[in-house]
Amino acid sequence: MRSTTFEGALAYDPEAEEANVTPLPVARICPRPPPSSWASISMDCLARTGYEVTLCDPLAESGALAQVIGERKALLVTTPTVDRVHGSAIRRALAKTDAVSMLVLNAREESKSMDLVHAVCAEALARGINRRGLLVSFGGGVCSDIVTLAASLIRRGVGHVRIPTTLIGQIDAGIGLKGAVNFCGKKSFVGCFHPPEQVLIDSSLLRTLPPRFLISGLAEAFKMGIGRDESLFALLARRSRDLVESGFADEAAREVLQRSIWSMLDELRKNPYEDQSYERLVDFGHTFSPALEAALDFRIHHGEAVAIDIALSSTIASCLGLLDNDGWEEIVGALEAASLPISSPRLDLELGRSALTEACRHRGGSMNLVVPSAVGHATFLRRREELADPVLIEAIDRIAARAGAGK
Amino acid sequence: MRSTTFEGALAYDPEAEEANVTPLPVARICPRPPPSSWASISMDCLARTGYEVTLCDPLAESGALAQVIGERKALLVTTPTVDRVHGSAIRRALAKTDAVSMLVLNAREESKSMDLVHAVCAEALARGINRRGLLVSFGGGVCSDIVTLAASLIRRGVGHVRIPTTLIGQIDAGIGLKGAVNFCGKKSFVGCFHPPEQVLIDSSLLRTLPPRFLISGLAEAFKMGIGRDESLFALLARRSRDLVESGFADEAAREVLQRSIWSMLDELRKNPYEDQSYERLVDFGHTFSPALEAALDFRIHHGEAVAIDIALSSTIASCLGLLDNDGWEEIVGALEAASLPISSPRLDLELGRSALTEACRHRGGSMNLVVPSAVGHATFLRRREELADPVLIEAIDRIAARAGAGK
Repeated sequence: MRSTTFEGALAYDPEAEEANVTPLPVARICPRPPPSSWASISMDCLARTGYEVTLCDPLAESGALAQVIGERKALLVTTPTVDRVHGSAIRRALAKTDAVSMLVLNAREESKSMDLVHAVCAEALARGINRRGLLVSFGGGVCSDIVTLAASLIRRGVGHVRIPTTLIGQIDAGIGLKGAVNFCGKKSFVGCFHPPEQVLIDSSLLRTLPPRFLISGLAEAFKMGIGRDESLFALLARRSRDLVESGFADEAAREVLQRSIWSMLDELRKNPYEDQSYERLVDFGHTFSPALEAALDFRIHHGEAVAIDIALSSTIASCLGLLDNDGWEEIVGALEAASLPISSPRLDLELGRSALTEACRHRGGSMNLVVPSAVGHATFLRRREELADPVLIEAIDRIAARAGAGK
Repeated sequence: MRSTTFEGALAYDPEAEEANVTPLPVARICPRPPPSSWASISMDCLARTGYEVTLCDPLAESGALAQVIGERKALLVTTPTVDRVHGSAIRRALAKTDAVSMLVLNAREESKSMDLVHAVCAEALARGINRRGLLVSFGGGVCSDIVTLAASLIRRGVGHVRIPTTLIGQIDAGIGLKGAVNFCGKKSFVGCFHPPEQVLIDSSLLRTLPPRFLISGLAEAFKMGIGRDESLFALLARRSRDLVESGFADEAAREVLQRSIWSMLDELRKNPYEDQSYERLVDFGHTFSPALEAALDFRIHHGEAVAIDIALSSTIASCLGLLDNDGWEEIVGALEAASLPISSPRLDLELGRSALTEACRHRGGSMNLVVPSAVGHATFLRRREELADPVLIEAIDRIAARAGAGK
């Protein structure tokens, strides 16, 4: 017999019952007939994804993590330091579920490699994480980089949730779509875009961070303040010391987090996969800094290198007459007041030039150096020719002199 | 000075010229102001991608490959066998460009691992493939799996083009979005969805394939014919021997390719990232076959295992009264006429049961066994309970008896 079928619904088939089997739901599959002949077919594939960044302070009591995980099997990945400091809080947050296992991974920037990604994948396999399973990263940028990439690979992509434990993680690295590791000595050469399901922000996790980590994290907040949010900048200029001294328990902390996160997401939204434009405001502070970090063998914090880049880029804008002296003074003064470095002896013409060459290569042939035109406003130097060596030398010398004077 | 800025356009700044610098294009960046306070922000990220599957026969003379590559730096990855048989043709197709380097990778199903993916990434790094660079896979499913995954990882995703050299590649594995490799003994445990830019189909590449490869490739065409295209099935039932004997140079070849590819893409289109539904018609023939391939240590061709799965699934449909006897006879007879196997001594109740358990795990808890309800029409057995052991045993025995009788 041929089963009775109709579209999009279930059919009850009496003959099936006569044959002594359970009645079967049968759905019609409606194929589109092929054209009589074709030479080329276009295939559209739209991926609809999205995620939420949620403030849940304090995480251990909020129930947010258990709620996100729900009934799913999950693997939580963390680092030894985070486990030591916050392990008991996270175990408390997960007390009511036994579907979560934990992997403590000794992950550091210099060892951020595919080996660690594979370690996460192997653990997920051993724990029986299926396509509906979940990874959770509980740590800083290195931890979330590794977990994001592992989640993108496991069974062609499982969900992941991030709980950033550093300021940079909470306002920058942890709230985007990206993950990457170093490969054959090349920083972030292999990676992915794999949006998380949720990012849970608990600012009380910042309380135990050493001041240097908080200060360097502020550089990413300054990036957004100088680049697009005057109020955020004003808040930072006024309160950065209080924020650091209180471990972000200061009353300004919530607004700094909210404004920084909002700005970051608002920028990402325009170009989440970086395929719409090579002009990205979030590249502010990220043109000279990668070369500087590499030259210093990562003995400098990422945020410190970003602050130096912001200071140099602002000085370039000033030398080119794009930023007035008051604006330059405000920016550089606020970075100094936050105890951020504004210059490095290692940042010379040669390093600057090679950083710009790499930026051009990375940005589709355009330099796209982001420079402030005022506090809260930025613009792009698009072509390499727009930044001649004499200007670069002048800017490097001027910011070095300022740094020297400040000592 | 503060630069004059206006939206979405370039500004000419006379003061900049006075300062003896090139006038700079300055674009206003318009941030959305943050809400005064928030607890959760939603971030939407839509990925717009698409690709084309193009018939270009013969590739070496069509100019299609050189045109796709354009001015970009590319790395073409192939296997020793394909290089031996088609290497000169591909070099001819690329004679006019020197931006393409070639990597011959000894890739086989059993060695399809992250090591090979890393080898491609390392070569891409050595060759200076940038974000606009391109990978080209020139080979069968294993080659395109490795290249797809490498392309998804390199600099968080570079473009890739596929030139499938097997029938399965041209109508199935090579025209989808997926790539995967084996990991810690688990088949396809790590992988990605990373749509190619183009798939170039040259049926003349099939002429040199050993008959067994063509025959097993036909199983994927049968999958589509039985599942949703009666005309394709009729063509296969009538012409499969001619197609194999002529090395797909037969006049029916183009229509078989066109109808198979059309059907596959039409199915993929509904659910390109497999996140919309666990009911996939293209899973027809792919429920028992993975377990069978594994049990036989991959000494069976993928297409042969698919044919056995199709025969068993059709027999299950027949046992359940979902497929009438004429339909069953047509399907099984056509597989036999194409010299495809319909049964294996290794496929017993135990293997069948464990395959169904694995399918349920893989398909979000539902069995979703695809079974034909007539030639050209399929339906799903959704719940595991819909296929009781006695029915499975009866179907296994009946198809084994038929296979025995045919010998």
